[in-house]
Amino acid sequence: MNDAFASSDASRTADPLIHARTVRFKGPLHMVREGSLPHVDVTYETYGSLNAQRDNAVLVCHALTGDSHVARHDDGDAPGWWDIVVGPGKAIDTDRFFVICSNVLGSCRGTTGPNSVNPATGLPYGRDFPAVTVEDMVDVQARLIDHLGIDKLFAVVGGSLGGHQALAWATRYPDRVLACAVIAASPHLTAQALAFDVVGRNAILRDPHFHDGQYYDQDTKPDTGLALARMLGHITYLSPESMAIKFDADKFQPRDVATEFEKQFSVGSYLAYQGDKFVERFDANSYITISTAMDRFELGRSPGSLARALGASNCRWLVLSFTSDWLFPAFQSRQIVDALIATRQYVSYCNVQSDAGHDAFLLPNDLDAYGQMLKAFLESTTPDATFSPLSPEDDDPSCAVLHHDRIDYDRMLPLIEPGSSVLDLGCGRGGLLTRLAHEHGADRLVGVELDEQNILATLQRGFDIIQADLNEGLPEFGDNEFDYVVLSQTLQSIIRTEAVVDEIVRVGRRAIVSFPNFAYKKIRDALAVDGRSPGTDGGQLPYAWYNTPNRRFLSVLDWREFCAERDLTIHDAVYLNTEESRTVVDNPNLNADLAIFVISR
Amino acid sequence: MNDAFASSDASRTADPLIHARTVRFKGPLHMVREGSLPHVDVTYETYGSLNAQRDNAVLVCHALTGDSHVARHDDGDAPGWWDIVVGPGKAIDTDRFFVICSNVLGSCRGTTGPNSVNPATGLPYGRDFPAVTVEDMVDVQARLIDHLGIDKLFAVVGGSLGGHQALAWATRYPDRVLACAVIAASPHLTAQALAFDVVGRNAILRDPHFHDGQYYDQDTKPDTGLALARMLGHITYLSPESMAIKFDADKFQPRDVATEFEKQFSVGSYLAYQGDKFVERFDANSYITISTAMDRFELGRSPGSLARALGASNCRWLVLSFTSDWLFPAFQSRQIVDALIATRQYVSYCNVQSDAGHDAFLLPNDLDAYGQMLKAFLESTTPDATFSPLSPEDDDPSCAVLHHDRIDYDRMLPLIEPGSSVLDLGCGRGGLLTRLAHEHGADRLVGVELDEQNILATLQRGFDIIQADLNEGLPEFGDNEFDYVVLSQTLQSIIRTEAVVDEIVRVGRRAIVSFPNFAYKKIRDALAVDGRSPGTDGGQLPYAWYNTPNRRFLSVLDWREFCAERDLTIHDAVYLNTEESRTVVDNPNLNADLAIFVISR
Repeated sequence: MNDAFASSDASRTADPLIHARTVRFKGPLHMVREGSLPHVDVTYETYGSLNAQRDNAVLVCHALTGDSHVARHDDGDAPGWWDIVVGPGKAIDTDRFFVICSNVLGSCRGTTGPNSVNPATGLPYGRDFPAVTVEDMVDVQARLIDHLGIDKLFAVVGGSLGGHQALAWATRYPDRVLACAVIAASPHLTAQALAFDVVGRNAILRDPHFHDGQYYDQDTKPDTGLALARMLGHITYLSPESMAIKFDADKFQPRDVATEFEKQFSVGSYLAYQGDKFVERFDANSYITISTAMDRFELGRSPGSLARALGASNCRWLVLSFTSDWLFPAFQSRQIVDALIATRQYVSYCNVQSDAGHDAFLLPNDLDAYGQMLKAFLESTTPDATFSPLSPEDDDPSCAVLHHDRIDYDRMLPLIEPGSSVLDLGCGRGGLLTRLAHEHGADRLVGVELDEQNILATLQRGFDIIQADLNEGLPEFGDNEFDYVVLSQTLQSIIRTEAVVDEIVRVGRRAIVSFPNFAYKKIRDALAVDGRSPGTDGGQLPYAWYNTPNRRFLSVLDWREFCAERDLTIHDAVYLNTEESRTVVDNPNLNADLAIFVISR
Repeated sequence: MNDAFASSDASRTADPLIHARTVRFKGPLHMVREGSLPHVDVTYETYGSLNAQRDNAVLVCHALTGDSHVARHDDGDAPGWWDIVVGPGKAIDTDRFFVICSNVLGSCRGTTGPNSVNPATGLPYGRDFPAVTVEDMVDVQARLIDHLGIDKLFAVVGGSLGGHQALAWATRYPDRVLACAVIAASPHLTAQALAFDVVGRNAILRDPHFHDGQYYDQDTKPDTGLALARMLGHITYLSPESMAIKFDADKFQPRDVATEFEKQFSVGSYLAYQGDKFVERFDANSYITISTAMDRFELGRSPGSLARALGASNCRWLVLSFTSDWLFPAFQSRQIVDALIATRQYVSYCNVQSDAGHDAFLLPNDLDAYGQMLKAFLESTTPDATFSPLSPEDDDPSCAVLHHDRIDYDRMLPLIEPGSSVLDLGCGRGGLLTRLAHEHGADRLVGVELDEQNILATLQRGFDIIQADLNEGLPEFGDNEFDYVVLSQTLQSIIRTEAVVDEIVRVGRRAIVSFPNFAYKKIRDALAVDGRSPGTDGGQLPYAWYNTPNRRFLSVLDWREFCAERDLTIHDAVYLNTEESRTVVDNPNLNADLAIFVISR
């Protein structure tokens, strides 16, 4: 990780750490699990300016092999590992934020690690370096934040192991983090990811040149083992799709690299190059130390223990995963999100569509998605509020299927008591949420959506939003967590109707359901008189039987019977004729083309 | 691969190769690409008896690290690597078939390989062993078959690298193979799978004890490198799901194994054990030789080149993949199937539901599925016919949704000319195909289904069947490949209606489409008079609006208009009232609840 730009390394004329500063914290510093250090040097870089209130600091946490050089400081500077995200006007905007990035404890890029001199022996620590944890890394960062005179971070942001650090920050220092962005991370490594790390470490540990970790004054180092570990790691950072694109066309043409590794296949020569280059800048003991810390990271194994861990936090969350990331698969991010929801935290989540694998967050391919989401998350977070709606409702072309006619919003709003909390399922671009925020005030407004563009738009409006497919079950909201759950013109496209209805009356004290009435007179006439199917949804939508996204065709009567059979209480019902833009009172099952019901269990 | 039963190795009291014979073929034997051998020893085992016609021989091809000992010969024998599949009454029934399994060229388990003595030097070949290919392995097997006096194999069966060998057999010796079963294989390795092999080989090649391959008379061998390669390989043979089940619960409790590898985590100790044990029975040069052959295997990179390669074959095919196999992912098996379909071969395919990963074919977990499919494939293949229907139509409970009332078959059969070829989409358990076979004769009868149990049942009836989800596109059948394509009561559950209809009139000279008529009088009355939705499908099915699997509601009139708009010719139409078990003539759009149309482009 963190060297996705490897191919541009040749252009690094400047020392990448030339802008770095190092601060020494006197000890002894005790590690969380075992061991201690007499002192710790922390190497860090900063970007932008700390404001007078000292409340605009963003800590960026790096991944396994990264360092403090997250971005260029000026045009002559060496590239940083996250130049695409950190800088003036970028997702983490250094015109607004004071960005801090420090090298982690145990690394070899300035901060104290196994290659640092142990004052007790005068030799590098080597294998005597404590088995540090992610928590130790974060504790050292906390000292740095103290040193910089910052009481509370505006945000902690990190991907991969950086995401683990962000999780540790929010749970160990809940009062010192306002917002936490966790990207391509997990509560713990999968057994598969852990197994790859084990093989990589074994390659180093069993390299005859490892010299039990005291290779610093030897003629040889465990370069082969470290390169093998890197080659293996590199495979796991890419998706199978991206590897196919990179290497299938010239499979049998190895690239012209100088290496002692196998050079039969294009992918082999690429990995050889990555491995050989890596040993020039990284220390084998650091690789062992940091990868072990990652492997031992355990935020909570069961949903309950995860919720207990995350329940300690007190910040606004953004969790992002990538669809093609198989090293930190999306279901693990979703476990974090479910635990945050279960503990009633403010959280947004998206599984970003990407072909780039785990490294996606370091690459420009999908920056339009994840970068914009991160930017919207940071910009809509203010020290005094959890959201701040950014713009009034605009046209909503991308979700015309579900929200084609907003007369239902006009009629729905009076059904919702001002100051209530509302969960909007299938919220589109946040149109209803925005009206609720502007016209109604709100205790808490949350959206659920499937479409990535809609999620971004809703985030940009400042709302918390969870990506979920209602057909795969609702996120883990608690019983009666919201005053209202809204299912607006979505019921008719859901497969698991009964399960979803069960959920909305569990999560909401009241549920508001709107749907097209398929017993509307025009549809009846079409079928009864003309013998045509009700595929056109009462004339509202330009769909036919063979291409309508609707798959459930129910009438007002059907719905009333459905509710009666399930002991659902109907508190209110509003019937509309959207063709004539009017409310229907007389025989709604014949005269209304849209119905809005307020129900509860 | 091939040692999924590793844990039972301790019980191997007998020499596993005690029943093996070795035959020597004098040379020089020239390899396909380069190099030659002065002679080749082939070690093999046989099971069962060759019949008088010498047409019951089944060649089983082993994977990367396997050997000739595919199964026990008697109770006192050591376990074979495929005991669960090969034996009396098993999927490859040794009561019926004469089973042959030989160790592959380049291995170290009896057949000539890098550890064999080079007559020219008196030393083991080591790195001087030719870079053999899968084709060379197969050519040597062909000599063995000659030696056994067998002209044509009843079947070649193999998984993983064994599947590559089966593919090479069918394409290099098309007249010598009647049936070919390819399991968990691919036209070539993915870039990702190849990359793992490269890292594994590099661990061996760069092990200081490799001695450039001439380690046989040295004090040390590249055991560490070989063990690392094995550990890495082992991860790729398992699915992430199966690893989680095995190792998550006791993640931090390494098992008590004697090893010099890292022993911090349960998964690490398991891999260490696998690696250490492997070096006792396998030769590092063989690992390099065989894995390289696998990596270089290339049946065809593009659909066109793959079709050209497979077009040379002339046998009945069974292709099986496993849903959780990420090393040889299902899409690669589907590429083989598509190429076979494109070249109009007899082929069946199923992506077997499994959590076991690539090793699934070696494990008992999913034997009920893949073993039964293999058994049905072999048992319904006869030397003189491509299929032999096994049983008359039985009740079809598992597909009641689509085939609840077979009066439509009665009316559909007269629409199909005897002796025609028919593709039945959504064929269920093969009921219509069976009736066509028994009552109609047929040129070629093929089914397409999604459900695994239905696929097995159709295979057991002796038909070729392809697993496919019509919503994801049809298999790659050619234009006008069938006289008839049947879409029987499936149209109403399809999402991509227009695309599927386009396909059926492309692949069939005629298409036969049946569907429920939603303008049937009872449905009209329900909606027009009662104001209830047409969810009950005219009373035929026990579904309501909220749980019907149907998602398209069309009338006879809708369908006629749909055809007219697309210039589809309607050749014939039959209207049924299934409630009254009669044909409808008068006003079918009102009086029929089921319609059957014969159309063409």
